[in-house]
Formats: sequence, C-alpha cells, structure tokens
Amino acid sequence: MLNQRRVVIDYVSPVLNHGEFPIKRVVNEVVNVDAHIFGDGHDLIGASVLFKHENARKWNEVRMKPGFNDEWHVSFYVEKQGYYEYKVEGWIDHALTWQHGIKRKIEDRQRVTSELLEGVKFIEAIYKRLSADDRAYLDHLKKIFNDENSYDNAISEAVSDRLYHLFYIFPDKKLVNSTKNYKIYVDRLKARFSTWYEFFPRSASEKEGVHGTFKDCEKLLPRVAEMGFDTLYFPPVHPIGEVNRKGKNNSTNAAPGDVGSPWGIGSRLGGHKDIHPELGSLKDFKLLIKKANKMGVEIAMDFALQVAPDHPWVKEHPEWFKWRPDGTVQYAENPPKKYQDILPIHFESEGYEDLWQESLDILLYWIDQGINIFRVDNPHTKPFYFWNWIIRKIKKDHPDVLFLAEAFTNPKVMQQLAKQGFTQSYTYFTWRESKHELIEYVEELTKTEQREYMRPNFWPNTPDINPYHLQGANESKYIQRYALAATLSSNVGIYGPVFEYMISAPLPNREEYLNSEKFQIAHYDWNLKNNLISVITKINQIRKEEEALQQTNHIKFCQIENDNLIAFYKWNDDKSSEILVVVSLDAYNTQSGTMQLPLSDLKETEPGRPVQVYDFMTGNSYNWYEEWNYIELQPGLPLHIFKINK
Amino acid sequence: MLNQRRVVIDYVSPVLNHGEFPIKRVVNEVVNVDAHIFGDGHDLIGASVLFKHENARKWNEVRMKPGFNDEWHVSFYVEKQGYYEYKVEGWIDHALTWQHGIKRKIEDRQRVTSELLEGVKFIEAIYKRLSADDRAYLDHLKKIFNDENSYDNAISEAVSDRLYHLFYIFPDKKLVNSTKNYKIYVDRLKARFSTWYEFFPRSASEKEGVHGTFKDCEKLLPRVAEMGFDTLYFPPVHPIGEVNRKGKNNSTNAAPGDVGSPWGIGSRLGGHKDIHPELGSLKDFKLLIKKANKMGVEIAMDFALQVAPDHPWVKEHPEWFKWRPDGTVQYAENPPKKYQDILPIHFESEGYEDLWQESLDILLYWIDQGINIFRVDNPHTKPFYFWNWIIRKIKKDHPDVLFLAEAFTNPKVMQQLAKQGFTQSYTYFTWRESKHELIEYVEELTKTEQREYMRPNFWPNTPDINPYHLQGANESKYIQRYALAATLSSNVGIYGPVFEYMISAPLPNREEYLNSEKFQIAHYDWNLKNNLISVITKINQIRKEEEALQQTNHIKFCQIENDNLIAFYKWNDDKSSEILVVVSLDAYNTQSGTMQLPLSDLKETEPGRPVQVYDFMTGNSYNWYEEWNYIELQPGLPLHIFKINK
Repeated sequence: MLNQRRVVIDYVSPVLNHGEFPIKRVVNEVVNVDAHIFGDGHDLIGASVLFKHENARKWNEVRMKPGFNDEWHVSFYVEKQGYYEYKVEGWIDHALTWQHGIKRKIEDRQRVTSELLEGVKFIEAIYKRLSADDRAYLDHLKKIFNDENSYDNAISEAVSDRLYHLFYIFPDKKLVNSTKNYKIYVDRLKARFSTWYEFFPRSASEKEGVHGTFKDCEKLLPRVAEMGFDTLYFPPVHPIGEVNRKGKNNSTNAAPGDVGSPWGIGSRLGGHKDIHPELGSLKDFKLLIKKANKMGVEIAMDFALQVAPDHPWVKEHPEWFKWRPDGTVQYAENPPKKYQDILPIHFESEGYEDLWQESLDILLYWIDQGINIFRVDNPHTKPFYFWNWIIRKIKKDHPDVLFLAEAFTNPKVMQQLAKQGFTQSYTYFTWRESKHELIEYVEELTKTEQREYMRPNFWPNTPDINPYHLQGANESKYIQRYALAATLSSNVGIYGPVFEYMISAPLPNREEYLNSEKFQIAHYDWNLKNNLISVITKINQIRKEEEALQQTNHIKFCQIENDNLIAFYKWNDDKSSEILVVVSLDAYNTQSGTMQLPLSDLKETEPGRPVQVYDFMTGNSYNWYEEWNYIELQPGLPLHIFKINK
Repeated sequence: MLNQRRVVIDYVSPVLNHGEFPIKRVVNEVVNVDAHIFGDGHDLIGASVLFKHENARKWNEVRMKPGFNDEWHVSFYVEKQGYYEYKVEGWIDHALTWQHGIKRKIEDRQRVTSELLEGVKFIEAIYKRLSADDRAYLDHLKKIFNDENSYDNAISEAVSDRLYHLFYIFPDKKLVNSTKNYKIYVDRLKARFSTWYEFFPRSASEKEGVHGTFKDCEKLLPRVAEMGFDTLYFPPVHPIGEVNRKGKNNSTNAAPGDVGSPWGIGSRLGGHKDIHPELGSLKDFKLLIKKANKMGVEIAMDFALQVAPDHPWVKEHPEWFKWRPDGTVQYAENPPKKYQDILPIHFESEGYEDLWQESLDILLYWIDQGINIFRVDNPHTKPFYFWNWIIRKIKKDHPDVLFLAEAFTNPKVMQQLAKQGFTQSYTYFTWRESKHELIEYVEELTKTEQREYMRPNFWPNTPDINPYHLQGANESKYIQRYALAATLSSNVGIYGPVFEYMISAPLPNREEYLNSEKFQIAHYDWNLKNNLISVITKINQIRKEEEALQQTNHIKFCQIENDNLIAFYKWNDDKSSEILVVVSLDAYNTQSGTMQLPLSDLKETEPGRPVQVYDFMTGNSYNWYEEWNYIELQPGLPLHIFKINK
C-alpha cells in the first residue's frame, strides 16, 4: 500500500504507552495537546485535534497553532465523565499556501494573473460549505480574479483577511494524516480533590472498653464534616477471623476478648460481603452511609483481597489458595516473616476466572449498598492486569466509583497501578520531610509523565505508619505536616483522631503505633478541641474556596533564601484562583527569608502596581511592590496561605 | 479476555515510535536493551531479550539483569545485515523464589520439611531438559528432600549454587509476558563509517577549458584513494536540460557554451537513466565504478527527483507535473524566488503510483550498473512516506545500498527523514563553529533518541555551502574544520578540490562559491600537494586504524579550561580502541589549558599508574600521572589525536 500523505505527526503528548492507557482528567479540566507536525517542502499546513466523548457521535474539532520548531499546540476541556477519545490530524493547506505565495509575489511586484486564475479553484472547493453572504463574496472574487480590468482590485482581495479566514475556517482537507485514537478517562472532581479522614469504627464508642458501632459512628459524622473532611474511610468492616487471630500489638497469641485485625477478613460469621456483627447490621451501615452523604461526607470502604483461615472461601473455593505438601493452606509470608492470620489469594490458580468474577461481585454488592469509594489494601500484591480489568468493569457502569491504591512499595510498581486504572495513589509524602525532598518529590509527580495518570494522595500518617518525625513531635510539626499535605496535594488524608490528638507513642524503634488500633479497641474523648483541629479546619475551608488547591499539577516552587522555609505558587486552569503558600519546616524557631514572587507566571501584574496578597490564616493583607519580599514564620502558626490579587 | 500474567514490562528502550520504525545498527554493533520489569508481590522474576535475524527461525535468548529501581538491562550483538526483531519477556521465577524463601527460613532456623517437599515439584518441572549428569544430581536431591534422615544434607543442597544455576539456566516459564516485536535494521559498516570526497567530473580534465570525462576521473582515483577517502560522490551525471538552462553564477540567461547545472536533469538526450554524453558513455561510467572499487573507493551517485523543462517525462508523463491555468508547467519556486530551469515533481498527482514505480526503477537501474550509494538531493521536498517505501523496497533485495539525505532544513524534518529510512544525514555541523555550539550539537545527536536512527555525516563545505568562517580562512582553520568533522563524526565528507586547495572566494555576502562549479567547469592542477592534504591524509589513516573513530555515539566531552580548546574521548564497543582528541578553535594564536582525563571511563586505570598516551599527529608519547594535564596547541598543527594506553 502506497501512502500518499505528505504531513507527518510525531511525538503527540500527552499519550501513555502509545495509547494503551488513558490519560486522566476530571470534569471541566483542560487537556493540553502538543505534537510535532510538518510536511515536505514549503507548503503551509493545517492541524487539528479532534475529540469526543465515547457516547458522542460527532467529533469536536479544535485547530492547533504552530509554535517554535514545528511544535503545534492546542487545548480543550472535557466536560463529561467517562472515556474520551482524541486524535491529531494534519494536512497540506493548499489554499493558504496559494495566498501566501501570491502575497509574496505581489510584494515582489510580479504579475500574478495566472495565480489569480489558480485561486478560483480554491474558492470553488469551499463554496458549498459557506453562508449565502460568504458565497456572494466569493462570487465577486471569482469574477474579478478572471477579469484583467479588475486586476488591482483582484490582487487586493486575493490577500484579504476575509479570504484568509474563509480558507482557514473551511480547510479543503485532502490526504489528511491522522494519528490513532488516544484515550482520556474523565472522573468526577472528587478524583482530583478529596479530603480524607480515617478512623476505626470499633473505637467510636463513648464508653471505654465498649466495641464501637455504626450507630456510634453516626454521632461522629458532624465532627468529621465540621473539620472539613469529605471522605470518611473505615478499615474493613467484615467479620474478623478467629483462627490464628492476632493479639494486641501484633502478638501471635490472641488473648480471650482480643478483637483481632480487621484485615484478617472472614470467619464462620461470613466474608467480604458481610458486616462484622459487633459493628451492627447491614441496615445500620446503609443508614450511616446515607447520613454521611447528607452531610457531604462519602464513606470509603476498604477492599482487601485476602482472607482469614476461617473465611468461608477456604472451604468453598480451595482452588483459590495455595496448598502445601503437608495439606495446610499457605499463609502469607515474606520470609522470614509470617502472617498466620492471613491467607493470600493464589492468583495463578486455575480457578482464577471465578475468583475475578467473585471479586467483581463484592465491589458491585457494596456499590449497591451505597459505597462509591474503595481504598484498596495492598494492591501491589495482586496482579496488575486484574486491577485493570476490575476497575474498567466497575467504571463502565459506575463512573462515580473511585479507587485509592494503598501501595507503599517500589516507585514503578506504584506508578503502574495508577496507569492500570487506580484513581488515586498513596505516596512517599509520609516520609518526605526536608525542603529538598519535598520539592524533588512533588516535581517528580507534577512535572513528569506521572502527572497524566498518577493522582497523589498525601497522608501524614496511617495506621501502618507512625513516622519517626511525628513521634513525640509538637503541635507546630503537626500543623506543618497537614499544611504541606493539604496544599501540595489536592488529595489529602489523615488517620485520626491520633493525628489531631497528636498521639504518637510508637513501638520502640519502629514506625508503628504502640497499642495500635489495628489489633485493639481504643477509647477517645471525641469532644476534645484543640488548636491543631482549628488549623486543619481552616485549611480545609480554604481548599474548598480556592480551586488552585483543588488540583496538584499547577505548582511552581518559589525561590526563598532559607532551607527551613518552603514556598510555592499554585493556580487553577484559568488562573481565576492563584495561591501562594509558605510553610516553615522548623517546629521550634522563628524562620525568616526573602521570597521571590513568580511575577512572570501571575495572571495580572503590571510594572509599578503592587501585588496584593491576603493571608487566609491571619486575615492580614499586604501590598508587595518588589519581586523579593520578606517572610517570617513562627512555630505557633508556621504557614501563610496567600490569595493573590484579592 | 482475562490476562492472568503477573509481570509488567514497560519503557523498553531503544524503541522508536512504539516500534513503527527500526533502530539502526551496523554489523557487529552492540544493542543495549533497557526495560522496567516488575511483578506484583515479592516473588523473584526472570527476564530475557529474545532476538533473531528476519531470516532466522530460532530466537536467541539473552537473560536480562536487574539494576537499581526495577530497571533491567542486557546487551547483544547483531551480526548480519538486514532486519532483526527483538522482544522482551518477563515471568515469575517460582523455583528461585522458593530457593530464596527457604534460604531465609533456614537462616531464621525455621524447620523447612514441608518447603523441601515443595522443592521437589520445581525439580521435576525442569528435569527433562537437563543433561544426564544434572538429572542424577536432581534424582539425589529428590531423594534427600523426601527423607527426614537426610535433613541437614537436604537443606544444604536446597540452597546450593548448583541448584540455583540449574533453576536460573532452565527457568520453568509460565504466564510469560512479552512485548511486541521491535525492529532493528542492520547495515554494513560503511553506513556508520565512511569518508566522502565530492568533485565535479566535468572539472576533471587536465586541460583548461575542456569538459572533463569519466576517463579523466579514472586518472584522479589514485589521488582520492591515497588521501584516504572511500566514497567518491559525483553531482548528477545525466543529460543537462537546455531549456531555461542557467548561466554562470546562477544567471538566468545562459550564454552559448554554458554547461548548466547538473541538477537540471534531462533533455532531448535523455533523463534519469541516461549519461550526459560529454562525460562519456555508460560503459565508461561502469568501468570507472569498477576501477574505483578496486582501489577501495565506491562511487556515490546523486538521486535528484526533479527535471529540466525538456526532460522526456514532461511529455511522457504530464500527469506527474503541476500545470498552471495558462497551460505552462509549474516550475520550482519559493516565492518570490523562481527556479525556471527546474520542474518539481507533483507528488499529489493521481499518477503517483507510476511515478513511485519509475523512481524505484531508476534506482534499480543504477544499482544494476554497480552503484551502491546514493546521495539524495533535497529529500525534504518529496513526501516522507515515499522515501520510506522506496528505501525499504531497495534494501529488501539490496541491503548494501546506502542513502545519504541531503536535507538542510528544519531539525524535525531532517530527523524524520532519518527515521523513515535514510542511512546517513547531512547535518548543521557546517555552521557549528564555537566550542559551545559543537558540544551542544554533538550531544543532541549522540545523547538523545536521535542516536538510534540518525547517522550524521559532517561536511565542512559543499558546492551549496561556502561557509562564512572558511571564506578567506587560513590553513589552520581548514585543518580544524576537517579534524573536527572527521573525529566528532565517523561519517565525514568534503567538496574538493576547493576544500583542500582552500579556494573560498564567495559571491558577495553569501555562502556561495564565486564561479561555482554548479554552473560552470573549473580547471585545477590536480597534482598540487600541500600541508592540508597531508593532514587530511593522516587523519583519514588514523580513522581506518582506530575503531573509536569509526562510530559517533560513544563520545564524552572533557573539561578543558579554555573556550578555544575542545577535547573529547571516544571509544569502541569493547574499548579496545580509546582515543582522546583535542582541537584548537583558534587559527591565529597558540592556546593552552589543562584538560581533565575521563578517568572513570577509561578501560584500564590504576591509581598510581600513569595513563600512557600516544599522539598520532606528532608521534610523541606521554605518561600522564595526574587527572588534569597541560595541553598547548599552535595554529600550525591545531590538534592532538591521542591513542590511550598504547
């Protein structure tokens, strides 16, 4: 097959793995498309991006504009959830090439009678697609282009802007080259902007020593909502295994009355589709979901594909597990470590098709009960293509459903889970503490290809991670960590109330909580108020007001001459929201330095006119007349969140 | 379809456009393959690159090795011309995972009776593929793994190196994941290492005012061979158009006797398959080719797809040209410039299939006459996909044939021609003069993806380019330009004898030669000798001896504290040839500075032992005891070419 096309389109971005994976966006987010586009010879070319929602019949077309060095660009907005397709088209624009040539010849005082005659065919080519008014204009042109007596008039019209625009708007595309169709997956806004709170429902009781219930959780909903959280994530709420149950502080021998780990799922009382009776009934759970939703809080459920030794599957589906030569089931291990209370699923099982289907059924079951967000436990220990399949299956009929990948493992594995379909991802933020570490990590997330598919969710702590820098830390440090997480990343979460109550006693020399709720019930005074809670509440409120903080990728770190101060500028797609954040990394001393305003990036700056900033945290406003401005932060309130040009 | 595989392979390199284009190599060149490879969970994985020549039935397999951060690597050599395919495979290695686990458990003093029994199945899985000796060993293992009385012996054998190697060498691959097949095109060495000389055959006569002939050219062959050139390129040797023929210095009115531009191809005497009668006969041309080949010189022919107004095609194939409303054929123009002696081919013609076929026939015709190298004139004014088709067609049956793209245009256009199949490419070297410009440009060619498909050919001058820096330049400058071209790039060429005779009179304020041979015959004393010729000859000789200079990509610029001195280290694949080049960029003054040896890159360096270097240019040897060494170059001989560790 001979390919007669003359325009080449290369290095289209953003594209992941040649289109194998969709890039990700949320509703009303911009897509910036770049491509190298050029033809042979000196003819002018035209190029467009065509895009459409999977359910739409017609393509939308936006014309690309050439920049430096054959690099073309255009941006468009995606408006609906689901899959979009887009492709790039390029063609030789013979009409504009003709106009460009005749213009140069006229400037060179050449006689262009023959060229005018050539122009007629370009006019005829687009004639039918025009309005009556434009047709009349072209009729006129055809007449004068053919008439030597109208030569002066003809050459002036031949190079007119009006003709240029008609040729530009109605290109007579021939031998169009086109890329393959690339995919975009568009989520609801929450995929990009979410504020998570995690607590153990069994610790929800007001009475010490009593197992918390969903009813108790209901009472805590106002507290969660008032702090400004919109997503409430619970560890697994299913029956907890009784065989090999773990005791307090992960001991292998559970004492009578020990409640075990909620991740040891399944017992004689049921499995992944059942509710742990001590928490209440399915009805209670559904009511909690409903009440939470009314307050603007969604309940996120844990999806942990593993079982306790007494999970019903072990008997019903022995083929889903690995059996040892001694006739026992293989429990989880990472030699020499053993996890006898947990049996991993054997994904290489010959019965894997039933297993995948049953996993899908579990998700569909809980979606039916009202759940739309899943925090997936250890997804990196299950096959990547399994996740690709199950997430695509779910999203096809339930595009609102979001998946957070709880994978703290090798970077490429975490990235791959995001590529394969996870909506959001846990990150290394938990361990990134210094200015250098934070900048380097955020640049990696927001300035590389990862920005197109990996939506970070920054957690200062989790039930599994009591980071060394928070152990025994003061209030200032806690404020810093929440402020950094919640302003660097638009998805953020904390495990409470240990975070806001600054409970951080560890197992010795480990990043584990002492008396972890993973293995026992805790008792809290849920009515306690403190300054940290106020600051968290304030920050969450600012996040709700400012779109700049509802996205992660538009970020630019600012020069500030102090390694204990970190400063960055964030903005939304149209720069109607511009924010400047400064955080001190010193929990004990006042820190000061001069910070450079990113003047060339700001939406509105005029020489001589001050940049007006308003600090949400203090309510103070400033007029900055210089590019470099003095900043001072004290441990008591170690951050500014400035609105620019307010 | 459910994909049960567990290993992911991502970011394979080198791969161009997801495998749409082959990467390029020459015979016996190395291919370094990198990929991100990882599985879910903690199991050990295995990975291989499989490669084969297109005509081979069996794949060769080389095992990849893991490096940092899930990045795997292996290299292999391609040994035959033509297409190779390669792909990357990954799988979970259950046997090695088992051995790794049992080792950790034994170290942890766990009893592993059951694990030993599990090991038996891994032994059984590979048993059939082993030698009798290895089978006997595995029989023994099976026995002791099943025998509690041999426990101590069993656990020592379970973790043995011998068992490890058997498992490693005979992996029991299951659920193997594999990439698509990527392509490599392997050329003969000349694609990467060639030394070109260009002259106008019509200027070959010893007698002034007489049109040179192929017979005259025969007499010049020893001169070309002795200077060390292996490729002799002639401008077109076809009949020259008589209609609208150009006169001297590109004047539009040819005087009687003016010979015209050889690129104005075709007249009543014939077209692209004919020989200009004044040069001689086809028989003469074939004899010249034969005699040249005997001296190790290949004749490269010009392939210029354009015609003079009196080329036979204009009458035979009017559909291949663009006709204007006034009934004339469209001549070449780039408004306001006009090229009335040249008619471009109209590739959008409906008769394009015949046109493509005829173009192919022209190449095949000259290949039949003994031509194996084509220098393609202005390929960027013909469609990219045409070149892709015609080059693939030719190479399928004639893999020895090489194509040099004469495109001096936008960077991405030049790159695309190389991607689409051109063997070598003209470059911007001609205009890169300062140290910064040279380093930046060579880094772009050798450290980006271009290294995989674009083989630069560095020309200090061409009949079209008499660069400003050579106009009136002294001998030192000419030496510098040839030295840079011939050591930075393994493909190099000059247009002579104007280059080595330092003839550089220009048209005023233009990079054009005055009295250019493009439009008239020149007369030279072909027996003239000078120092520049000696230096060129010496450099060409070193290039033939040192493989480091027969490739372009292995280059590292060295720190040298003087902007007038440029220094770089080059090496071949196995570092059996290591070269250090230093060139002064000052044609008038002595320049000195200290240069840093790239110690960590050198094949053999021991602390305390000097680096021995031998300067090919002077015959002097030095022992360098320090990392930084003093260099001084004078205009008379402004370069060192050091052999390292001689």
